Amino acid sequence: MKNLFEIDEWKIVQNHYEPSKQLQSESIFSIGNGSFGQRANFEENFSGPTLQGSYLGGIYYPDKTKVGWWKNGYPEYFAKVLNSCNWIGINLIVNNKLIDIHNQKVISFNKTLDMKKGLLSRKVTLQLNDESELLLEFDRFCSMDNPNLGVVKVNIKPKNFSGKLTAEVYLNGKVYNNDTNFNELFWNHEVSSCNKYKGHVCTSTKKTKFLQSTAMEYMVECNEKKLEVIPEVLEEPFKISNKFQIEIKENQTYTISKYVGISTNLNDAKANVVEESVRVSKNAIAIGYEELLKNHIKAWEEIWEKSDITIAGDKKAQQGIRFNIFQLYQTYTGKNEKLNIGPKGFTGEKYGGATYWDTEAYCLPFYLKTNHSLVARQLLMYRFNQLDKAIENAKKLGFKNGAALYPMVTMNGEECHNEWEITFEEIHRNGAIAYAIFNYIEHTGDKNYLINYGIDVLVAISRFWEQRFNWSEEKNSYVILGVTGPNEYENNINNNWYTNYIARWCLKYTLESQEFVNSKKISDEEIKKWNKIIKNTYLPQIANSNIFLQQDGFLDKEQLSVKDIPLKERPINQNWSWDRILRSVFIKQADVLQGIYFFEEDFDIKTIKENFNFYEPKTVHESSLSPCIHSILACRINSIEKAYELYLRTSRLDLDDYNHEADEGLHITSMAGTWISIIEGFAGIKIKNQELYINPKLPKNWNSLTFNLKVQNNTINVFFNREKLNIKNNGDKLIKVNFRKESSYLLKTEESLNITI
Amino acid sequence: MKNLFEIDEWKIVQNHYEPSKQLQSESIFSIGNGSFGQRANFEENFSGPTLQGSYLGGIYYPDKTKVGWWKNGYPEYFAKVLNSCNWIGINLIVNNKLIDIHNQKVISFNKTLDMKKGLLSRKVTLQLNDESELLLEFDRFCSMDNPNLGVVKVNIKPKNFSGKLTAEVYLNGKVYNNDTNFNELFWNHEVSSCNKYKGHVCTSTKKTKFLQSTAMEYMVECNEKKLEVIPEVLEEPFKISNKFQIEIKENQTYTISKYVGISTNLNDAKANVVEESVRVSKNAIAIGYEELLKNHIKAWEEIWEKSDITIAGDKKAQQGIRFNIFQLYQTYTGKNEKLNIGPKGFTGEKYGGATYWDTEAYCLPFYLKTNHSLVARQLLMYRFNQLDKAIENAKKLGFKNGAALYPMVTMNGEECHNEWEITFEEIHRNGAIAYAIFNYIEHTGDKNYLINYGIDVLVAISRFWEQRFNWSEEKNSYVILGVTGPNEYENNINNNWYTNYIARWCLKYTLESQEFVNSKKISDEEIKKWNKIIKNTYLPQIANSNIFLQQDGFLDKEQLSVKDIPLKERPINQNWSWDRILRSVFIKQADVLQGIYFFEEDFDIKTIKENFNFYEPKTVHESSLSPCIHSILACRINSIEKAYELYLRTSRLDLDDYNHEADEGLHITSMAGTWISIIEGFAGIKIKNQELYINPKLPKNWNSLTFNLKVQNNTINVFFNREKLNIKNNGDKLIKVNFRKESSYLLKTEESLNITI
Repeated sequence: MKNLFEIDEWKIVQNHYEPSKQLQSESIFSIGNGSFGQRANFEENFSGPTLQGSYLGGIYYPDKTKVGWWKNGYPEYFAKVLNSCNWIGINLIVNNKLIDIHNQKVISFNKTLDMKKGLLSRKVTLQLNDESELLLEFDRFCSMDNPNLGVVKVNIKPKNFSGKLTAEVYLNGKVYNNDTNFNELFWNHEVSSCNKYKGHVCTSTKKTKFLQSTAMEYMVECNEKKLEVIPEVLEEPFKISNKFQIEIKENQTYTISKYVGISTNLNDAKANVVEESVRVSKNAIAIGYEELLKNHIKAWEEIWEKSDITIAGDKKAQQGIRFNIFQLYQTYTGKNEKLNIGPKGFTGEKYGGATYWDTEAYCLPFYLKTNHSLVARQLLMYRFNQLDKAIENAKKLGFKNGAALYPMVTMNGEECHNEWEITFEEIHRNGAIAYAIFNYIEHTGDKNYLINYGIDVLVAISRFWEQRFNWSEEKNSYVILGVTGPNEYENNINNNWYTNYIARWCLKYTLESQEFVNSKKISDEEIKKWNKIIKNTYLPQIANSNIFLQQDGFLDKEQLSVKDIPLKERPINQNWSWDRILRSVFIKQADVLQGIYFFEEDFDIKTIKENFNFYEPKTVHESSLSPCIHSILACRINSIEKAYELYLRTSRLDLDDYNHEADEGLHITSMAGTWISIIEGFAGIKIKNQELYINPKLPKNWNSLTFNLKVQNNTINVFFNREKLNIKNNGDKLIKVNFRKESSYLLKTEESLNITI
Repeated sequence: MKNLFEIDEWKIVQNHYEPSKQLQSESIFSIGNGSFGQRANFEENFSGPTLQGSYLGGIYYPDKTKVGWWKNGYPEYFAKVLNSCNWIGINLIVNNKLIDIHNQKVISFNKTLDMKKGLLSRKVTLQLNDESELLLEFDRFCSMDNPNLGVVKVNIKPKNFSGKLTAEVYLNGKVYNNDTNFNELFWNHEVSSCNKYKGHVCTSTKKTKFLQSTAMEYMVECNEKKLEVIPEVLEEPFKISNKFQIEIKENQTYTISKYVGISTNLNDAKANVVEESVRVSKNAIAIGYEELLKNHIKAWEEIWEKSDITIAGDKKAQQGIRFNIFQLYQTYTGKNEKLNIGPKGFTGEKYGGATYWDTEAYCLPFYLKTNHSLVARQLLMYRFNQLDKAIENAKKLGFKNGAALYPMVTMNGEECHNEWEITFEEIHRNGAIAYAIFNYIEHTGDKNYLINYGIDVLVAISRFWEQRFNWSEEKNSYVILGVTGPNEYENNINNNWYTNYIARWCLKYTLESQEFVNSKKISDEEIKKWNKIIKNTYLPQIANSNIFLQQDGFLDKEQLSVKDIPLKERPINQNWSWDRILRSVFIKQADVLQGIYFFEEDFDIKTIKENFNFYEPKTVHESSLSPCIHSILACRINSIEKAYELYLRTSRLDLDDYNHEADEGLHITSMAGTWISIIEGFAGIKIKNQELYINPKLPKNWNSLTFNLKVQNNTINVFFNREKLNIKNNGDKLIKVNFRKESSYLLKTEESLNITI
């Protein structure tokens, strides 16, 4: 696959303008700061293909549900992440010619996303006519240092001519979502104001009444000297702008820098969002571009210090993992408990930008191991705060006694999704939410969380499972009928091994936790019933083998391999009708293997191998969440080449656009899976009862691998090379632990941290 | 259940105006003539609840598909039956007061649908003020004698006052569908014209470019004497009208009669629809109301002569069956091979008015036995004509080699429906279409149909089944995975007994037919493969019993009875979430029992009984197609009371509004099931190889039962009474066949028709 982007360890670089890849490029070069973010749309007027996108964390619109055939229980609306005020806009007219890359001759083009600095730069030389070449240099960042600040700077340099420049610096709040069900505008105009060099636009969302205010101040310079201009001040509903004209001279550099404050009332209904946004832009212009950028880069440095992974000897792999880490921290920083991690982050509108089980199954382990444990705890609190709504949701579906079913997709705790086979049946998400609590406590030892919050979530989830199991006379066991597992290429199946397994585990873990917490949240009758279910859970298995059966009837299918599918029919979800996919043996993502990954300690290597060898050849990995888990298990069973192939697929999914869908946004949540596949896969790290197990298996082209790892609030710096495998702590004091390749090593973290040299 | 309508053997009568039941009433009193039809909307202005509906057979609009989540293979559009020009409108203003039942005091109200005559009448006395009472009498019919003619007549009688009447006689072509996906107007205005006493409106459908023209002429009379008026002639796009004022005198009767010609280009793209509509209305006014009505009644008499069923001793049952027969013939007469029978006929918009498997499974037997065999043949030809599209449809889903999958819902042969579990998986419809061919030939002996048309359909359907079966190593059999059976309360199941059974039967019947036809349409390889499938079809069954298993895993469900569901939770499809319905044991409609009904000769009474007793208690009959089949089988196993209960439920489904949905239209196709439940159920008639088996079982309150029956193009008049059971032919020549109650009697029709007395 020939790629648009250069391979570089710290940068994403695009060296020519390619309209057909513009949408993908806008996604790839997206920037954000956990609080807001945006696609890499151009600042200036652009008539080529584009998907405008500027998003504010947590600000959503409940779009009326669109459905072909209504089923009882469907939610009334789908919470959409909102495309908000365009704050980057600077239109340029040079000698009466509206600058538009799509309409002018591009002599040179460079777009660079410096991931170390979190800086998006673009350098374009345009041929305006036979005599006129114009150089434009844009820089932009969403401040990691100030969650409400965005900065844009453009240098304009007429290389071989003099003339007139007209510039329009504007904010436009009249933006539509691409993904609307009934083509509505989601915003109302509240108030705006515009003066010389500044202005603001305050809009509110329909129905949800969220307020956002975007304020700008800007300045103009010539060769870094401030230039006074006389702007025309324009105001219309939703939009404000300053338009001014200046003389520009050959080979001089004219700079417009725009400082934008963005605030919302997400955290405080009474917040004066206008004042706040104005304050931020005013402060920013006073501080100045260089200083703001320095602070921003420093904030990124701190993130990289904690979470960088270095891979020596493999630039592709190195770029891939950094891109993933970079995007994850742009999307979520853990600073706000009302936020979560949408599948597309701030890079597109698809999937509504809401919370999926991806958060617990993939993202939580990433934040847990790369940052302070409070970040992961924040993600748990998000679900805890929505427990009442999860109970309400279950009640709507006929469950009682405080049983909770967390929504498949949510923004505020209410279900948004409306496909019966997903909304009502992909109930394994409840298991992942319980598992996240377990995972968090395993890593942090923070059992107080269990006492104060976790136990309530666990009990409510277990009540759901109790009611969802039913006794089968036929099987003389408890069964779970009518589910969709993580493998969404099977719908409404019976006894999905993964779902049954995690449901049973939830009951067990809740009972254990209850004992620890020593409260009386579960009745004796419930304890009795849960134990009965635990003892009699039906778990399908292939006779005379260690292979767990994905679901009842799986062996009735024609047993084919992915290699039997003609290449032109891949991906099958773009080529086969849905029924054909469903009745085929082909798997979208880890299902049995996902379960084995979660509960690895329950299975021996032989079992893992047999299951991997049975299921992996049937897996088309058409979910972005699939390859990472497979990569980890491939490491376990020593299929390092397979693991590496899958690692590249996951880490470069969007860079190399494997699934032909990067144009609509990036696969943010699956990026966490990439990180896990290095740490738990190649590095072979498992944490159990706060003990660290290490069994590294480096791919052959990796000379060394370095990263930090959080265990029990301490950071361990881990460094592997092919010759010598060491473990260091976060100071310079080395903990020398030599072990043989391929062997497992058990590190008791407390003990090891006491070792010094 | 207190009903709005009186019990009468030949009439539907409503004796008071009830706004909350107005929509249901509009459905119940619908009239039509197979070519067009309409809901019983009022002629005059009406501000109460109403669903305007005036429909033209075969005229549809391809409404862009609305779907929450697109699946590959979904059709781009859904063909909607169109709400067309309002042709009944006559607005009345008396002494400056706009007549509107909803706003005036109703002193008396009577609405009568005379099913014998096909005449809808309404008689209303309104109190306009303290001194003024106004009597209005409306009569309306859609001519059975002239498929393009509709007639409205209104008598206006000021009972105790004199004053002014302003009347507006109009046509309005600007009508919207209630059931649109994106609130579009489906019509373009083509041309219209208006003169004194007459006018026409021609409109065309967007996209499909169907033309319709509606033309009217009208006259005004006083006490049956023609009255000249001076109308104001009004024309606007889509609408034309005549508005005139006359003096009206106490106790005199003023009559407006409106003659409407309606034509379309359905059959002939070049048809001059305007001329035709004008011709019809002009001729009609020349012939005059009384004569037109006489001809209309005569046409109905001919229908009743062929298809009436009389039940002595049970008025409710009598009214029910006549209502069903009446509605069926209003909907479809077999005169046009481009038409078919929509689930709501001309009584509502729901389900798009297109063709479902209902046609073959329920309607065909009705027309086959109550009319000339050409009518049933017309229904077969409809599918034959769409074979190419069915092959195309299957191809889209990945099938090859001329395999055909007929659409679930269609207007022109292309699939319209977009729920994957139905569209792609409810494939048993293919079986019903093959069975209809078999059924037709069994009854008519018209084996030429097989040679010329039937064999092609059968081969293409069988090719589909061949490819849809797959070999299961596990079961050592051919299985069919991922289907929805007639019981739509199960989705995406494996080895639905009904589907597997009818699929195997299709293969067998096609092979037999091929032998008869003696052509080489099927390759030797195919013959071999089909025979292998026939020999090794997997048909699930409960061990040690005669009970066929609805699908794999059915016994894993909690085995409950309908009586275990609290009444307030019925119907479950309005109270339970979809997943709960799916994993419950409850059945929407006959599935195993539908199969036993189709292939009754394959099973002994003991088997039928065991299956009925296993499945019927689990069946909620929430499909209108369910009770009839159960009623028939209940007769077979001598549960006459159960059969009678189910018969009433099916025959009075809409009259008594069992499912609380008669407001959106009537269940036209299931009405045929009602007829079958009498003929094949209580009358116990089965036709096999053109031999007639009779085994009647009358409910205890039925003194006698009479009907005609078509066998091999001859009509047999069948008459049962409790004392003496006779069979007569269609003359007065009795075929005296005495037999004991409860015994089976075999009548060879040819032989018996030779018997005279």
